[in-house]
Amino acid sequence: MALENLLPLELIDKCVGSQIWVIMNGGKEFTGKLLGFDDYVNMVLVDATEIDPVEGNTTLPKILLNGNNICMMVPGGDGQYQVEDE
Amino acid sequence: MALENLLPLELIDKCVGSQIWVIMNGGKEFTGKLLGFDDYVNMVLVDATEIDPVEGNTTLPKILLNGNNICMMVPGGDGQYQVEDE
Amino acid sequence: MALENLLPLELIDKCVGSQIWVIMNGGKEFTGKLLGFDDYVNMVLVDATEIDPVEGNTTLPKILLNGNNICMMVPGGDGQYQVEDE
Amino acid sequence: MALENLLPLELIDKCVGSQIWVIMNGGKEFTGKLLGFDDYVNMVLVDATEIDPVEGNTTLPKILLNGNNICMMVPGGDGQYQVEDE
Amino acid sequence: MALENLLPLELIDKCVGSQIWVIMNGGKEFTGKLLGFDDYVNMVLVDATEIDPVEGNTTLPKILLNGNNICMMVPGGDGQYQVEDE
Amino acid sequence: MALENLLPLELIDKCVGSQIWVIMNGGKEFTGKLLGFDDYVNMVLVDATEIDPVEGNTTLPKILLNGNNICMMVPGGDGQYQVEDE
Repeated sequence: MALENLLPLELIDKCVGSQIWVIMNGGKEFTGKLLGFDDYVNMVLVDATEIDPVEGNTTLPKILLNGNNICMMVPGGDGQYQVEDE
Repeated sequence: MALENLLPLELIDKCVGSQIWVIMNGGKEFTGKLLGFDDYVNMVLVDATEIDPVEGNTTLPKILLNGNNICMMVPGGDGQYQVEDE
Repeated sequence: MALENLLPLELIDKCVGSQIWVIMNGGKEFTGKLLGFDDYVNMVLVDATEIDPVEGNTTLPKILLNGNNICMMVPGGDGQYQVEDE
Repeated sequence: MALENLLPLELIDKCVGSQIWVIMNGGKEFTGKLLGFDDYVNMVLVDATEIDPVEGNTTLPKILLNGNNICMMVPGGDGQYQVEDE
Repeated sequence: MALENLLPLELIDKCVGSQIWVIMNGGKEFTGKLLGFDDYVNMVLVDATEIDPVEGNTTLPKILLNGNNICMMVPGGDGQYQVEDE
Repeated sequence: MALENLLPLELIDKCVGSQIWVIMNGGKEFTGKLLGFDDYVNMVLVDATEIDPVEGNTTLPKILLNGNNICMMVPGGDGQYQVEDE
């Protein structure tokens, strides 16, 4: 069964209310529950965690992430990379 | 009770008149009272403080922050990170 | 026979359902199957791999890449550069 | 008396004809008199000075600053930071 | 005879089917034949070469370059800089 | 006599046919004659020179500069900074 096309905003819409992992342009990484978004891919996360392997993770109750500077979003992501099988 | 959706501009609108913490693309950080914003997420802050742990904080009576270069906004944020419980 | 003009969004459209290689602004590289895209060149990839010659590749089931920060897309690309003949 | 809301473009409009201080994305800083601006926050400054504590300040009779790359604007700013009271 | 004005998109249009040299924001450089473009200055190149004086040039059959991150385009450019006469 | 307001695109329009100096986001600098521009501040320069104090200047017959990545434009600029009087 061929994979059905999925538009970017459709994918984000499916994630509302669920956990996502967002990597920003400058390298900052966040996980949290997606509360809302708009056409510019601006996003509101609640119960957010900034992932920082060096300084330690920090929690932020509610944040706005500017779509301009979002590099990548991983639905359901928990911030852990799966290493490719050798 | 399921969390109600919250659009990004709705979140910003709720912050008008309150303290927010803004992290810019290049790493600059500001706290201050949000006086106004527009659809491009440009923001006007009053009684603003630029947070600089190295050079020391500086105060700025009124500033315009360009939405293009805003990375993240934390409602009610005072610039202090809450470290995640171990 | 002169090459027919090909508009950027036409090229992306032809790639839907196929493997592509995307290089982001900050240097991150991904391969994966293109599931969908929009006019802002936002893209949804499935069975994605982040290519990282240093830390090793990582797999991501489904990702959204923000068009703002896509530098280059190579249709059918597998992440391998073809060195120019001397 | 509650602070009245102030839209970003309203703030810039109030500054036309006055001295402002602009910090660009890449770190360049300018002061000068604002001669005009547009909805993209592009700005025209006259009698401008590029502030460079290392190489020394330089003067530029008239310049256009691209709104895309403006990080922050300080009305009436002279380029001097006010250090926060301890 | 005064030089006739030439709009940016007119210049790009004149280059369709010809060799161009594109320098991206992050410093990547490409030459290739322009197959198409759009109003956002997104470009499709065929028979493309990524110019890399350090790692060696690499060839790419067909690529999409995101207008957002194009810094400069040189019509007919072959990637060689002409040093200014002393 | 109060300075008349001058919109950014008006300033650029006045420069068509004249020498300008453009500083790009990444630090590249160009001088040349402005042949045309558009609302996105994309610019066409002829008889252009890339100013590079380290590697030496290079000449480019005709170039397109992407407005997205233009930081500053100086009308009539020749690439020489005027140091501020002590």
